[in-house]
Amino acid sequence: MTSPKRNKAKIVNGPGGYILQDVPHLIDYLPDLPTYPNPLQDNPAYSVVKQYFVDADDSVPEKIVVHKDGPRGIHFRRAGPRQKVYFDSDEVHACIVTCGGLCPGLNTVIREIVSSLSCMYSVNRILGIDGGYRGFYAKNTIPLDSKVVNDIHKRGGTILGTSRGGHDTAKIVDSILDRGINQVYIIGGDGTQRGASVIFEEIRRRGLKVAVVGIPKTIDNDIPVIDRSFGFDTAVEEAQRAINAAHVEAESNENGIGFVKLMGRYSGFIAMYATLASRDVDCCLIPESPFYLEGEGGLLEFIERRLKENGHMVIVLAEGAGQDLMSKRMESNTLEDASGNKLLKDVGLWLSQSIKDHFKKNKMVMNLKYIDPTYMIRAVPSNASDNVYCSLLAQSAVHGAMAGYTGYTSGLVNGRQTYIPYYRITEKQNHVVITDRMWARLLSSTNQPSFLGPKDIPEEKKELPVTPLPDGIVDIPPVTKEITK
Amino acid sequence: MTSPKRNKAKIVNGPGGYILQDVPHLIDYLPDLPTYPNPLQDNPAYSVVKQYFVDADDSVPEKIVVHKDGPRGIHFRRAGPRQKVYFDSDEVHACIVTCGGLCPGLNTVIREIVSSLSCMYSVNRILGIDGGYRGFYAKNTIPLDSKVVNDIHKRGGTILGTSRGGHDTAKIVDSILDRGINQVYIIGGDGTQRGASVIFEEIRRRGLKVAVVGIPKTIDNDIPVIDRSFGFDTAVEEAQRAINAAHVEAESNENGIGFVKLMGRYSGFIAMYATLASRDVDCCLIPESPFYLEGEGGLLEFIERRLKENGHMVIVLAEGAGQDLMSKRMESNTLEDASGNKLLKDVGLWLSQSIKDHFKKNKMVMNLKYIDPTYMIRAVPSNASDNVYCSLLAQSAVHGAMAGYTGYTSGLVNGRQTYIPYYRITEKQNHVVITDRMWARLLSSTNQPSFLGPKDIPEEKKELPVTPLPDGIVDIPPVTKEITK
Amino acid sequence: MTSPKRNKAKIVNGPGGYILQDVPHLIDYLPDLPTYPNPLQDNPAYSVVKQYFVDADDSVPEKIVVHKDGPRGIHFRRAGPRQKVYFDSDEVHACIVTCGGLCPGLNTVIREIVSSLSCMYSVNRILGIDGGYRGFYAKNTIPLDSKVVNDIHKRGGTILGTSRGGHDTAKIVDSILDRGINQVYIIGGDGTQRGASVIFEEIRRRGLKVAVVGIPKTIDNDIPVIDRSFGFDTAVEEAQRAINAAHVEAESNENGIGFVKLMGRYSGFIAMYATLASRDVDCCLIPESPFYLEGEGGLLEFIERRLKENGHMVIVLAEGAGQDLMSKRMESNTLEDASGNKLLKDVGLWLSQSIKDHFKKNKMVMNLKYIDPTYMIRAVPSNASDNVYCSLLAQSAVHGAMAGYTGYTSGLVNGRQTYIPYYRITEKQNHVVITDRMWARLLSSTNQPSFLGPKDIPEEKKELPVTPLPDGIVDIPPVTKEITK
Amino acid sequence: MTSPKRNKAKIVNGPGGYILQDVPHLIDYLPDLPTYPNPLQDNPAYSVVKQYFVDADDSVPEKIVVHKDGPRGIHFRRAGPRQKVYFDSDEVHACIVTCGGLCPGLNTVIREIVSSLSCMYSVNRILGIDGGYRGFYAKNTIPLDSKVVNDIHKRGGTILGTSRGGHDTAKIVDSILDRGINQVYIIGGDGTQRGASVIFEEIRRRGLKVAVVGIPKTIDNDIPVIDRSFGFDTAVEEAQRAINAAHVEAESNENGIGFVKLMGRYSGFIAMYATLASRDVDCCLIPESPFYLEGEGGLLEFIERRLKENGHMVIVLAEGAGQDLMSKRMESNTLEDASGNKLLKDVGLWLSQSIKDHFKKNKMVMNLKYIDPTYMIRAVPSNASDNVYCSLLAQSAVHGAMAGYTGYTSGLVNGRQTYIPYYRITEKQNHVVITDRMWARLLSSTNQPSFLGPKDIPEEKKELPVTPLPDGIVDIPPVTKEITK
Repeated sequence: MTSPKRNKAKIVNGPGGYILQDVPHLIDYLPDLPTYPNPLQDNPAYSVVKQYFVDADDSVPEKIVVHKDGPRGIHFRRAGPRQKVYFDSDEVHACIVTCGGLCPGLNTVIREIVSSLSCMYSVNRILGIDGGYRGFYAKNTIPLDSKVVNDIHKRGGTILGTSRGGHDTAKIVDSILDRGINQVYIIGGDGTQRGASVIFEEIRRRGLKVAVVGIPKTIDNDIPVIDRSFGFDTAVEEAQRAINAAHVEAESNENGIGFVKLMGRYSGFIAMYATLASRDVDCCLIPESPFYLEGEGGLLEFIERRLKENGHMVIVLAEGAGQDLMSKRMESNTLEDASGNKLLKDVGLWLSQSIKDHFKKNKMVMNLKYIDPTYMIRAVPSNASDNVYCSLLAQSAVHGAMAGYTGYTSGLVNGRQTYIPYYRITEKQNHVVITDRMWARLLSSTNQPSFLGPKDIPEEKKELPVTPLPDGIVDIPPVTKEITK
Repeated sequence: MTSPKRNKAKIVNGPGGYILQDVPHLIDYLPDLPTYPNPLQDNPAYSVVKQYFVDADDSVPEKIVVHKDGPRGIHFRRAGPRQKVYFDSDEVHACIVTCGGLCPGLNTVIREIVSSLSCMYSVNRILGIDGGYRGFYAKNTIPLDSKVVNDIHKRGGTILGTSRGGHDTAKIVDSILDRGINQVYIIGGDGTQRGASVIFEEIRRRGLKVAVVGIPKTIDNDIPVIDRSFGFDTAVEEAQRAINAAHVEAESNENGIGFVKLMGRYSGFIAMYATLASRDVDCCLIPESPFYLEGEGGLLEFIERRLKENGHMVIVLAEGAGQDLMSKRMESNTLEDASGNKLLKDVGLWLSQSIKDHFKKNKMVMNLKYIDPTYMIRAVPSNASDNVYCSLLAQSAVHGAMAGYTGYTSGLVNGRQTYIPYYRITEKQNHVVITDRMWARLLSSTNQPSFLGPKDIPEEKKELPVTPLPDGIVDIPPVTKEITK
Repeated sequence: MTSPKRNKAKIVNGPGGYILQDVPHLIDYLPDLPTYPNPLQDNPAYSVVKQYFVDADDSVPEKIVVHKDGPRGIHFRRAGPRQKVYFDSDEVHACIVTCGGLCPGLNTVIREIVSSLSCMYSVNRILGIDGGYRGFYAKNTIPLDSKVVNDIHKRGGTILGTSRGGHDTAKIVDSILDRGINQVYIIGGDGTQRGASVIFEEIRRRGLKVAVVGIPKTIDNDIPVIDRSFGFDTAVEEAQRAINAAHVEAESNENGIGFVKLMGRYSGFIAMYATLASRDVDCCLIPESPFYLEGEGGLLEFIERRLKENGHMVIVLAEGAGQDLMSKRMESNTLEDASGNKLLKDVGLWLSQSIKDHFKKNKMVMNLKYIDPTYMIRAVPSNASDNVYCSLLAQSAVHGAMAGYTGYTSGLVNGRQTYIPYYRITEKQNHVVITDRMWARLLSSTNQPSFLGPKDIPEEKKELPVTPLPDGIVDIPPVTKEITK
Repeated sequence: MTSPKRNKAKIVNGPGGYILQDVPHLIDYLPDLPTYPNPLQDNPAYSVVKQYFVDADDSVPEKIVVHKDGPRGIHFRRAGPRQKVYFDSDEVHACIVTCGGLCPGLNTVIREIVSSLSCMYSVNRILGIDGGYRGFYAKNTIPLDSKVVNDIHKRGGTILGTSRGGHDTAKIVDSILDRGINQVYIIGGDGTQRGASVIFEEIRRRGLKVAVVGIPKTIDNDIPVIDRSFGFDTAVEEAQRAINAAHVEAESNENGIGFVKLMGRYSGFIAMYATLASRDVDCCLIPESPFYLEGEGGLLEFIERRLKENGHMVIVLAEGAGQDLMSKRMESNTLEDASGNKLLKDVGLWLSQSIKDHFKKNKMVMNLKYIDPTYMIRAVPSNASDNVYCSLLAQSAVHGAMAGYTGYTSGLVNGRQTYIPYYRITEKQNHVVITDRMWARLLSSTNQPSFLGPKDIPEEKKELPVTPLPDGIVDIPPVTKEITK
């Protein structure tokens, strides 16, 4: 799998430093496609809407804090229905696939893609691909219509099933061709979106009239450019429950520590927002902010101090934090590495054990309660806010495909639905910027040390964890998106 | 109470049609005030933050969908901490007041104003005003510190108490002066913010060094300019519970109608978003979209049809919808008006009774279950998303006051915290634009008629309900904010 | 519809004052029925159970608090599987009907009757009757199997639909005969169970081999003999939510009154238990405990006093409380009666208006918030405790029918499943005994006046509201069951 | 610590095989104590109650399923207020201590002991002991009154703090004597109750007028005699959440296994009831029911079969299940034992790893998601049903102490509050009887194998896990209580 190439990027420049990073269109390589009037113009629900169709020139800026004389910067194409469409309703044969781990809202996105296609565009042929990419070539498809998907948004998980890996470009594109599919909706994380990009390239290479649309899914919120990923809001909400329990356990026991491990392999957004929302957390550890255990200014010293002051504390750990510390320990002790390896892959178990060992060695009473709510969070249905968000995402995705756009992901940028070229989504990850104000707010609210002095920051920047992705692609941490609000 | 005057507006113009609608500052009328370095620069939590302080030139655009060559439009001053502050920490004497109806998040805002003042700016003198504006002159104050407010964000309501009315400018400003208060944080709806504006004007007139800061509160989301009001997200979430119950009741009974009345006196945002999130609603009635009962295309005909098709239906009604219909009926029947008046002020009870009467008259079986969850929604604690939002709102409010700004409200605009002049918040209300795409999405999802033909729209625009506010101020519906995403 | 006759009661006497109130059996009028070995004895799940089958002599005492020398008292036949059954699995043709208002757990009971019949007894022919008694003769039936009912316990309401009335004995028994049904499961309240009793009598008269089984449903817990009705626990749990909201509203407003109306037309169990569980209630009004508004010792005086002391209060009202007061007011004011009648049937609206009027007249500030969560409570799915209870109820019902018993209801007595003859369920209602300890506990916890002096109690007993049941049957309040624990 | 001696048991015999297992009374060793009229007789809340005081002869049978001619069996003294009390209100100096792990309802019990003492008996001197038994001699006490405890029932945990161990009889009784405490309320599990028994013996030996009252706490419901322990209902409810999540994860992944570990070291009640309530579980493993992994009829074979049939499954494991299996593996592999020990103490992690290894070895795709919600369950506040239960438990405890009883625990037996002598609570544990009907119901609902043939049952009975209690006391599994309903 190769990375989406930026050199094919469609760029439009305008006055005052205006830059539009545009998305591909079927007519880029199929210039003679016929167009049709958008059937929405006869839809009674839309008949009273003035200027319902998005203006061809509408764009949305990526950067929202501006100066009087500053350049206008990068923009994205606004999502929404277009006056003309490039598919006749009877011609459309769509498919939907979900890949990767569970995330609240998957079923809502599926439901709304089906609803939008069938109710807005009178599309009747919609297939679900069973169990991720592999399902394209290894399994039967699942017929979808409005009735089948009617109640699925009230359930967690994905009715289509999901899996990791299984991406075989040739087999997938062959299957798309053989089945006569011409709209492909791919819901998944950055790995999945890279896969979608490659599928799109292959389809363009073969010159097929097939729109390939990505809908970015990441419960960790680690996809760049977009405001937030669907399901993130629900995940933060649900994480409160674990933090509350940790707080109760901590307060009720002598030198009680409530220790909660949350999702976040490469970025600590869930941990950070859950901490900010809860206000009960004394220490939040995320992959972006290195820390060390022993010695002055170390985590163990901080824990001791906080316990002496308050008699209890709550620690929140993103699963990717402290991976480097754990790896170092493992290397130095091959015996443990060989035998205890399975345990120790889990940094939460490792770190809580390290804390217990420390207090045992120092003969200090301490009661640590470890909570890992990961699978309880992933599996809940999306909340109201994510439900509305998933609906808009899905509708935007469908409007774009009908309008002939392809090779894009649908995403919310500064509160507006946009179409974003793949390379912007996949070339880097979104990270918590620890030199930014949101993290400072967190430090101020937890009153935890930064575990680094001001002079360490340049080094720290270099040390950002370079961690292999599940499928072996090395991810180089990027200059990250500014998310301060 | 007079309306905030726009003619004193501070406007800054820039190239490309850039307009900054700025907020007042203490030095506008007290030009010789001394400044102090911001104590945050010595705060360890902020020591690693690069460019922590907001650049004096930072602004945020009001309009986000742009064209390549379009004008840059109206901007607001970005919120956040400034390099220099106009209050010494020991000098600050702050007070907080909550006015109007309950809204999820009130306690979180109170908590975070107190936390921000005490933890960030080492302010020790913070008072709560008891029970709304009246408390300034008629009640004792409530001393506030970090300890008192520590857990209040987990409770609904407001620990300060609240009330409507009681605004007596002279008495309030006298009390502020007498008590030596120099920062006033006023949390409340549009009426309250108008009051805050008048207090600010009087304080400016008297030349006092007192910052007056508004934090807009409206569970209905009917305050213009800002992205959404705090507590709105929680309210929509909680409204799902009532809609679910209505759906169950409707499905289990022959010709069952689940009828839910939600908040929304002048604007139907809660009803609209709850409908979009739930997907179980067959008909959503809001103040902005007129409807009629009898005859072809009327509500009763639609209900009959939907019951015949599906055997059940769910109706969601914003409390302000159909007020005109109800008033007309009352006038034409003075007997009922005299005796039954108390019942009929509630449009939910009136409309559900009208539906029952209609089916009784037509001898059609029908089972209507009426649910009014209003006070159960208002009283819940804010969810995680609103908790984070309330924190940022409160912090922004405090940073602004410390920096010497006054006569502003703190608010989220296109995802960024800003300072907004009062007149933009109070001169009109935010309404659902029924000729816009979000409402079209709703119509498409419920499949309800628009209750008006395309030719009726111009008239409809003129007919937008001109309804007296509780305290007798006539509110002229404005050209409303575009909220389509 | 005539009342079930007690003179046909099957009574067994034993030593020490032992009395068994037995239930009818098919062989009472079909003495030559063949028997079959219970198929459960070959079921692997039951193969390890010792003494799985209930001993023919097992009985359960009604009265549990005993004295050393006291008589042994009334007993009921213990529920459970019998060694011999009177139906061959292939022969069984069962039907299930749900009648009356919604109650949490209806779907669980349906699910478990179906599961028990199909999994335990390999019964394949099970029908749902659509929409209550009427469905027997006016609608198509709904085929049921394990797959159809698999997830229904997670949803509120009843998948079979429900209605009130529609009981036509002849038509129903004809339909049972015509369709070849031989096991009838009837889920409903006391009116429904009276109907079941009449159906049983008619079936016995005709000499049919049809078992008629009742499962008592009453969210109000007003059915005598049994420990509690299914769904009651869930209802009390859900009522907490409304009381919490009322408490928040009350505390946040000056002289705030949170006023919650709960279910309970003839008995105040939900109101009483919700009050005891919540501990936030200042006054609980139930049908069994008369009260008056004006004058010394009246409700209004108490409200005034409590507001003066605490500044706020929470009132919980069972819907049947104060009906006599309201009726008196209506008679004395015919004008209102004619026009405002619809409003005033609701005692909650009437009483809250009366309180408002009183405070307005006395020019005392007061903020009353009225919450009626009835339909939100009825529609929730049953909680874990009710789920287990519903399962046991349904299994007991099925075991009894297979064993040839008929004309009984299945019910929990002192923690054990039993078969109870209809007349004990229908001849009176269960009421809160206000001269008993549980009500005293409540009075002690709310610190509310009893609204009656000790000398009034004899009169009060006579005054217990004699209220017409919905279908016109006059219900004479009985000597009530002792429920003190 | 020695075990409570049964040879001192107070037994009363009556006709028909009636046996009363009575509890000690202060006059057993202080025969000349004065009595006082119960102050409740002047309490307005109780003034209307007829026969409010419990009759001296009232008792409650332990066995509820009876035969016509069977013996009347063991009875317990009924709890409740007595006409005469042995403490003057001014004389009472009470203390409350909570020991052992968290359990929903601890705060409610504390609240209601305080309320009962202060509101019913006008007791003013009530102390909380800080952090379990150790707090008697190593920490300051916490003053308690109605105000302090007013809202605590809405919070999880215990405001008094808790710990394990720390039982030093001499120091504790010295502290009781030195502080002048004369009523001791001890809330804790079987170990704690054994401690209470020893304290009682020492106090009797010294001839002190001090009532020692136990309130049994065990989230696992493993205390015999009583119907259920407080918090159990809440725990089962909360466990549903984890099972639901496991179900969603299982259904969404190829060969998905949702694996939930629940509390239950020696008895599987939570696992069993959660399984029965949820209906989504395919396999429930508890300590009472041995199982094995490999070979025909083993767990791994069953998992393979279920996955092949359904494509997914949910496993619920009580933490004490399979301990013997895990221990055997550890012995046979000393290398792992030394290094991996920490991991492997947790049977959930060990068993889920064993399943993963098996499928990996057999090259079968399988996705196991492991959820351990233990600390999230323990920390929730009690639900409505447990709230009412905790209130009655606490009131009963207080009534008994005031009436001069001592050396008892307060507990619900067949739905009635009783006083139970310690030896009945501590001499054995309550276990799920796997040859009883409730377990058969579970097997029938999950359709899992029993993992043992009928012939194995006698052996199995001997093999019930004999597991050391945390403080080293070996617990011999008893003939267990019949809990079939």
